[in-house]
Amino acid sequence: MALIVQKFGGTSVANPEKIKNVAQKVLQCCAKGNQMVVVLSAMAGETNRFVDLAQQMQAIPDPREMDVILSSGEQATIALFAMAIKEAGNDAISLLGDQVKIRTDKMHTRARIQSVDTDLIRKHLDDGKIITVAGFQGVTEDDDITTLGRGGSDTTAVALAAALQADLCEIYTDVEGVYTTDPNICSEARKINRISYDEMLELASLGAKVLDIRSVGFAKRYKVPLHVRSTFIDNEGTWVVEEDKKMESKPVSGIAYNKSEARITISKVQDKPGIASKIFTPISEKGIVVDMIIQNTRAGDLTDMTFTVPRTDYEQALQIVEQVANDIGAAGVSGSKNIAKVSIVGLGMRNHAGIATTMFKVLAEEGINIQMISTSEIKISCVIDKKYTELAVRTLHEAFGLDKEHPAITS
Amino acid sequence: MALIVQKFGGTSVANPEKIKNVAQKVLQCCAKGNQMVVVLSAMAGETNRFVDLAQQMQAIPDPREMDVILSSGEQATIALFAMAIKEAGNDAISLLGDQVKIRTDKMHTRARIQSVDTDLIRKHLDDGKIITVAGFQGVTEDDDITTLGRGGSDTTAVALAAALQADLCEIYTDVEGVYTTDPNICSEARKINRISYDEMLELASLGAKVLDIRSVGFAKRYKVPLHVRSTFIDNEGTWVVEEDKKMESKPVSGIAYNKSEARITISKVQDKPGIASKIFTPISEKGIVVDMIIQNTRAGDLTDMTFTVPRTDYEQALQIVEQVANDIGAAGVSGSKNIAKVSIVGLGMRNHAGIATTMFKVLAEEGINIQMISTSEIKISCVIDKKYTELAVRTLHEAFGLDKEHPAITS
Repeated sequence: MALIVQKFGGTSVANPEKIKNVAQKVLQCCAKGNQMVVVLSAMAGETNRFVDLAQQMQAIPDPREMDVILSSGEQATIALFAMAIKEAGNDAISLLGDQVKIRTDKMHTRARIQSVDTDLIRKHLDDGKIITVAGFQGVTEDDDITTLGRGGSDTTAVALAAALQADLCEIYTDVEGVYTTDPNICSEARKINRISYDEMLELASLGAKVLDIRSVGFAKRYKVPLHVRSTFIDNEGTWVVEEDKKMESKPVSGIAYNKSEARITISKVQDKPGIASKIFTPISEKGIVVDMIIQNTRAGDLTDMTFTVPRTDYEQALQIVEQVANDIGAAGVSGSKNIAKVSIVGLGMRNHAGIATTMFKVLAEEGINIQMISTSEIKISCVIDKKYTELAVRTLHEAFGLDKEHPAITS
Repeated sequence: MALIVQKFGGTSVANPEKIKNVAQKVLQCCAKGNQMVVVLSAMAGETNRFVDLAQQMQAIPDPREMDVILSSGEQATIALFAMAIKEAGNDAISLLGDQVKIRTDKMHTRARIQSVDTDLIRKHLDDGKIITVAGFQGVTEDDDITTLGRGGSDTTAVALAAALQADLCEIYTDVEGVYTTDPNICSEARKINRISYDEMLELASLGAKVLDIRSVGFAKRYKVPLHVRSTFIDNEGTWVVEEDKKMESKPVSGIAYNKSEARITISKVQDKPGIASKIFTPISEKGIVVDMIIQNTRAGDLTDMTFTVPRTDYEQALQIVEQVANDIGAAGVSGSKNIAKVSIVGLGMRNHAGIATTMFKVLAEEGINIQMISTSEIKISCVIDKKYTELAVRTLHEAFGLDKEHPAITS
């Protein structure tokens, strides 16, 4: 008998028929002798409806009250799901974030889970019930309701799986798993069968939307085996697991891209201690998140500083930087919203020489200029002109053999 | 500075515009220096939507899970209301039934309030906040969510007013107050300015829908002054208060009717101890609520037993009674769904002789036959043919002078 945590997203529980289908899937797994904890999102569309209502009330909705209304969406879904299980003759009980005591910090609308109390779930599991838990929500030490932000239900599922020391956490979604790249822009994209936590973390942070990065972080820390798979098709999906030897044989596991950033360059900055702090402190004080930062050395004691910010913060960031550039005597500020970041990720990079060289050569052969480069142990990101995004992704996908079952080493 | 509890029903908070209007009303009252606790229902239509969803999941929805989904409706409303107050520049906080610790018994979908913890509300009031509390919901000692059934938000408001020893509980609704009778069938119906708890209890139990009977009972027990008034028109409504001398000067305060019952008669029952129990035990075991019971003495040791049940339970009750009649050797069973109960209510009945006589005479003059009569200290109910309901109500309304400011004593 295994303990399995399953999570179904909003499109999987969009209406009563779909909730019944999910109940059938859960019952099939239960009938094999497994104990089941089922984490559900709000019905697709509900969250947007609540946000719309809230924005009619208040220009910037109060975060605490936003969490009160947002959390009511999952509350409805889990009740309906429990009814469906009971109608099928099994026993079930729905539990809210505050009933499970999913304790979070006080950062409303993007709270972080601090602890999970498993006593109540254990008790009901021992009674033979199927447990359904509201995803996306928690409760502060003052009993205020919080929500976990984008992808929060994934995080709830993995946190519960970790706390319960579950044998497996299955994330059901509307795609078949994690792909080598976005199938929408590369028809050769293939489902990845197994991927390490670290690679998945990089892919999630670089723009792959199938799994929330926090849930992958949780899974890695507590060694929870994740299985990302389709609600609607009964195939194996992608296993996100601890690194094994075999994984390193592939130099690149996946290719991600992100078109939602913008680039800002300050040219001819004096190259002396404290300058970076002068530039980035006022930006972070406005809550703007800086992603890539690159500093080029010029001749003399001057340097160019380039960085990227979310495109929605571009104008505000530009304004701040122009002020700073003036204060520190830089030559000028330039920038562009027409950029994209294309990244390759793979554990094998650590052992295979020349992966970066291959990436640069392949892009150059297509006439794609690289504006910025940033690397980590298992990823290389290049900022390019946005219009080349799809071309770059497809070219790299082929160059690193991701369209083939066992990718060839091309470098 | 007074502490005022206000309750607004579903039609008063049906959409964002209406919620903003309610916020304006509350802020006006607050601006006079009052502390405010505002109890809200779900937006009109939400409860029906949830019931519909639940019935798609389970033929008879599980009561515990029904309460989980139902209670999410008020959760959305109070969050939106708190946002509206904050947008207007005041401070507000929303609280759910479990946050206020509105403890109830475990009778899901029709739970009864056992206690209310006022500490959290007091704390937020002291901080200068407007408090909004989800109506209709509570929580068991096991932290399961419950709902209070029909009219439950009225009960929440009065229970909070009682626990907080509020100066006043205002029930805002879509009518201007409590009327001498239903204005839909009697154009002469007038708004009652003041009425005693006891009269209101009788009217509520006899079919007047403006206030839930449990909330009146709470108000009477804890001496909470109630003011029932319109959300949409700024007039004084009806005060429901402790009895005073002046009230007794009117023999009749209001006329109620109920067309949703049916009558069953068992004829020629042996008049001996234990017979009534034999008849009514199997009926109550099926959860059927018997309202009026009348036993007529016949010649010899035989008697006729007549009683009323909700019309929806008529067929089932008839079946049970036919079986019982056979067992106890009664002559036969008859019944009718074409009945109505018309009742007059008034404290003055205790002192004015002949009120009953007047009622019977007035009905007789219109050719209306009385099938059953039942009386209490301050009410007289007659069961008549359903088709005469409106005629009876209008005739009695005029006969007892309810169409005039100071009703004449007509007996």
